[in-house]
Amino acid sequence: MGADVVKVEPPFGEPLRSRVESGEPPEIVMLNSSKDAITLNLAEERGTELLKDLVEETDVLVENYAVGTMEKLGIDYETLSSVNPELIYAHGSGFGDTGPRSDMLAMDLVVQATGGVMDATGFPDDTPVKTGIAPGDFLGGTHLAAGVLGALFQRERTGEGQYVEASMYESVFPALLSQLAAAYKETDVPPRTGNHHSSLAKAPYNAYETQDGYVTILCASDDHWETLLEVMGRTDLIDDDRFETNVKRVDHMDEVDRVIGEWTADRDRQAIEDRLVDAGVPAGAVQTIEEVLQDPHLSERGMAPEVSHPDFEDGIRVFGSPIHFSDAPEPDVEPAPRKGEDTSDILKDRLGLSADAIVELDEQGIL
Amino acid sequence: MGADVVKVEPPFGEPLRSRVESGEPPEIVMLNSSKDAITLNLAEERGTELLKDLVEETDVLVENYAVGTMEKLGIDYETLSSVNPELIYAHGSGFGDTGPRSDMLAMDLVVQATGGVMDATGFPDDTPVKTGIAPGDFLGGTHLAAGVLGALFQRERTGEGQYVEASMYESVFPALLSQLAAAYKETDVPPRTGNHHSSLAKAPYNAYETQDGYVTILCASDDHWETLLEVMGRTDLIDDDRFETNVKRVDHMDEVDRVIGEWTADRDRQAIEDRLVDAGVPAGAVQTIEEVLQDPHLSERGMAPEVSHPDFEDGIRVFGSPIHFSDAPEPDVEPAPRKGEDTSDILKDRLGLSADAIVELDEQGIL
Repeated sequence: MGADVVKVEPPFGEPLRSRVESGEPPEIVMLNSSKDAITLNLAEERGTELLKDLVEETDVLVENYAVGTMEKLGIDYETLSSVNPELIYAHGSGFGDTGPRSDMLAMDLVVQATGGVMDATGFPDDTPVKTGIAPGDFLGGTHLAAGVLGALFQRERTGEGQYVEASMYESVFPALLSQLAAAYKETDVPPRTGNHHSSLAKAPYNAYETQDGYVTILCASDDHWETLLEVMGRTDLIDDDRFETNVKRVDHMDEVDRVIGEWTADRDRQAIEDRLVDAGVPAGAVQTIEEVLQDPHLSERGMAPEVSHPDFEDGIRVFGSPIHFSDAPEPDVEPAPRKGEDTSDILKDRLGLSADAIVELDEQGIL
Repeated sequence: MGADVVKVEPPFGEPLRSRVESGEPPEIVMLNSSKDAITLNLAEERGTELLKDLVEETDVLVENYAVGTMEKLGIDYETLSSVNPELIYAHGSGFGDTGPRSDMLAMDLVVQATGGVMDATGFPDDTPVKTGIAPGDFLGGTHLAAGVLGALFQRERTGEGQYVEASMYESVFPALLSQLAAAYKETDVPPRTGNHHSSLAKAPYNAYETQDGYVTILCASDDHWETLLEVMGRTDLIDDDRFETNVKRVDHMDEVDRVIGEWTADRDRQAIEDRLVDAGVPAGAVQTIEEVLQDPHLSERGMAPEVSHPDFEDGIRVFGSPIHFSDAPEPDVEPAPRKGEDTSDILKDRLGLSADAIVELDEQGIL
């Protein structure tokens, strides 16, 4: 949303950097457009002092250390809010600050396991499987962002900052809606339903094999079903007793799948998508990651801008914002800085440190 | 965050209601705590007039009709902002208001297919599979919520409302970070990696079979690996050349998995989790949906409060908020209203309609 962001890393870099042997990992470049990057050694008192100096003029501090770490470093909310009572302090964690799981170390996989995502993903006769995206990381992050914005809104009225926290585990929980609801129904639904509806509540609803991959097709209404039959040239089935309503189609799910699978088998997935979208039936080809990355829709929406970066000479696609405002410009996308690239400038411009003092701090291992 | 929310449904109910034959579906009860519920027939001019009257005193309107629908109904942003220039109008959609995919009908499955989630989920030698959670629905929704809060913050300074939109497709895109980054690396990674790391960047990182299900274990550092070996009683491997660094362990992933799998096979998943969490190694049992729903951690965090509801006499767990503020009370959780339960009260209290006028509107099919 155009905030002026300073990313603070330890001198040896943040954990994501271990994914490559040298240079800036593409993950870092994708996630850190338009930020300033500094390094600070928070294990040293001089490092935390510099952080406190920066916090004096800061609206929001966001951190995702394990619960208790900032306290050990002497820069917890209580300390920082005494430096700047208007500070909004946001803590993202795996499981939250309290409760029996608060000590658990979370990476996305652990949240998917304990949070039910794995039990709900995969085919009924196969093992649980994680989802390839990172729902804990990204649902946790967006909830925390909403929390920060809520606190900023409140501060406009009260003049005071506050502490906000959101956890990956809690943020993922509501996304299990269909499965959780099934626990309160009498229907018997397996924990994993493959590409069928998560509570087997709809038919058709599946990924169908085509000549060049898969296409998803579903009918949210009986009108969709009739239109689908027309497009497939199967109007002979319009009055078929087995398929008249969604409830009946669910009862005959295998036959519904067979009728559609016969039609998709010798066609291309994109042609099927085009045809059905045109007719008004919900459908979409299963795209490969590479196809998604190059999807003209994302470029046109400003969601995957290509920037040039010294470590990626042929250009690299980074993230735009999925949130679009009528009365706020889309933020400029500046290529991510390298680790610590702005350390000197920030310490000079914001804290008034001299060039000599900065060199000295660097030599002492504080930067 | 404690907002006063009125949910507006058509007289025949919203689509989620078709999941049950009668009564309130558990999905509706879980998602609509603490709201007021009214019905309004927006296909009739009198219905849209009543909506406009309500909008006069409304801070935020949120809708997720297909692109163009609100315009057809005569209640698009332009119209409503002339009624109330301070209104924040939020539109959630599958693919966004513009771009080549803007006409596509989206349900979560279609977004998972076109958005790369399915290509990234499942085992390398098996077909793409959707994730059981609904990432499009929930990442789309939380991004839109953040957009609304950003607009509320801006309004405190400008006094003016605005139009905000977020789409499911764009909101899911960044969650593919690991896979998208892999496109810029020279390593060869299959689109689906099962329960291994999405870019095969870590080992160990997997779900291991136990006596009673699966447990996930991963090592984010060499220290984790040493600790894991100690817990498993395999200190003989600490100096083993094949396992010394993460890069080497990745090269010997199958052997790493075998060593761990032998240890987990005759133990219980929860006992393994407890032991490793205690030792400081990231680990978590794969919980069933039912176990998640009853997880004491969620209850203790206020994330799964049990309420009594006329349709669920034994009680039903609903959603708390994953966002916790130090300077704002946790919102009360009132059981969701039934369809249209508050229609009369809202029309009377907010618009000053008489009891007779409300009966007449009802008879005309407006409510």
